Amino acid sequence: MSKGYVHVYTGNGKGKTTAALGLSMRAVCAGKRVFFGQFIKGLEYSELKCTEFTDNLEIEQFGRGCFIEKAATEEDISAAVKGLERLKEILKSGSYNIVVMDELNIALYFKLFSVEEALAAIKGRAENVEVIITGRYAPEEIINIADLVTEMKEIKHYYNEGIEARKGIEF
Amino acid sequence: MSKGYVHVYTGNGKGKTTAALGLSMRAVCAGKRVFFGQFIKGLEYSELKCTEFTDNLEIEQFGRGCFIEKAATEEDISAAVKGLERLKEILKSGSYNIVVMDELNIALYFKLFSVEEALAAIKGRAENVEVIITGRYAPEEIINIADLVTEMKEIKHYYNEGIEARKGIEF
Repeated sequence: MSKGYVHVYTGNGKGKTTAALGLSMRAVCAGKRVFFGQFIKGLEYSELKCTEFTDNLEIEQFGRGCFIEKAATEEDISAAVKGLERLKEILKSGSYNIVVMDELNIALYFKLFSVEEALAAIKGRAENVEVIITGRYAPEEIINIADLVTEMKEIKHYYNEGIEARKGIEF
Repeated sequence: MSKGYVHVYTGNGKGKTTAALGLSMRAVCAGKRVFFGQFIKGLEYSELKCTEFTDNLEIEQFGRGCFIEKAATEEDISAAVKGLERLKEILKSGSYNIVVMDELNIALYFKLFSVEEALAAIKGRAENVEVIITGRYAPEEIINIADLVTEMKEIKHYYNEGIEARKGIEF
């Protein structure tokens, strides 16, 4: 049985979720079906509207917003655990050619569930399902099972100049 | 007059053009207009079909395909020079909120035109036009004028395992 590849986009620079979105749209343009699951995030990101363009892209959010820099609550954990269960089913179903696990690395970093649980979900995927994992702080176990890893490294960022995230550019 | 920001996505890892595409789609979802110019490239990339989803995204190619690793011909140079002229007009017009100069760094690396000409086009942009530059080997002059630079660094790549580029994933 041939497994699809596992991509990891990690690092502290801008472009990880954005690359996953670009990859998803390219895939949709080639007739593939994409499921885009977002851990942590629960805000009204502009990209959610991309689903209006095509039936081949589905986006679901498994978070309540951005708790990063603070501690995760029981509610954050419960949302993430449910999200992982959902993705496990999606991965196993084979109904999607590409499954994005957006911010999985962050969910692991904050110990919303264990890396073993995440690996089990990924390894249980149906034939030829390609998995896209994003988020800074990718743990070694995730890097090890990946076929492709890009580190998005911040060289310069306008956030450091006090510029805030802007609609249509960052979210 | 306030200029839009200049983003640079460079480095040897996968995700540069893909991030530019993701950013473009997010922007389109937020009601912005995007012009996506591609140097070097002239092949039938899947992403060209993204223009069918919305009138707010235009993609134009200024190349004949992939000559990389070989020498650029007169024809390659002429296509790139015309492309830069086109982008200069587009940037100046203010008709687009975001202008992508995909593979600009590669065009500069192969000296298809001078970095001074590229800088003049970028600096001549209308108010609030955001510029997205991609391609490995970003020259210092481009890094210097950028507000945001991410280096996409290859940590692992399946190409190194002999796997070829696949439709809907890489192109």
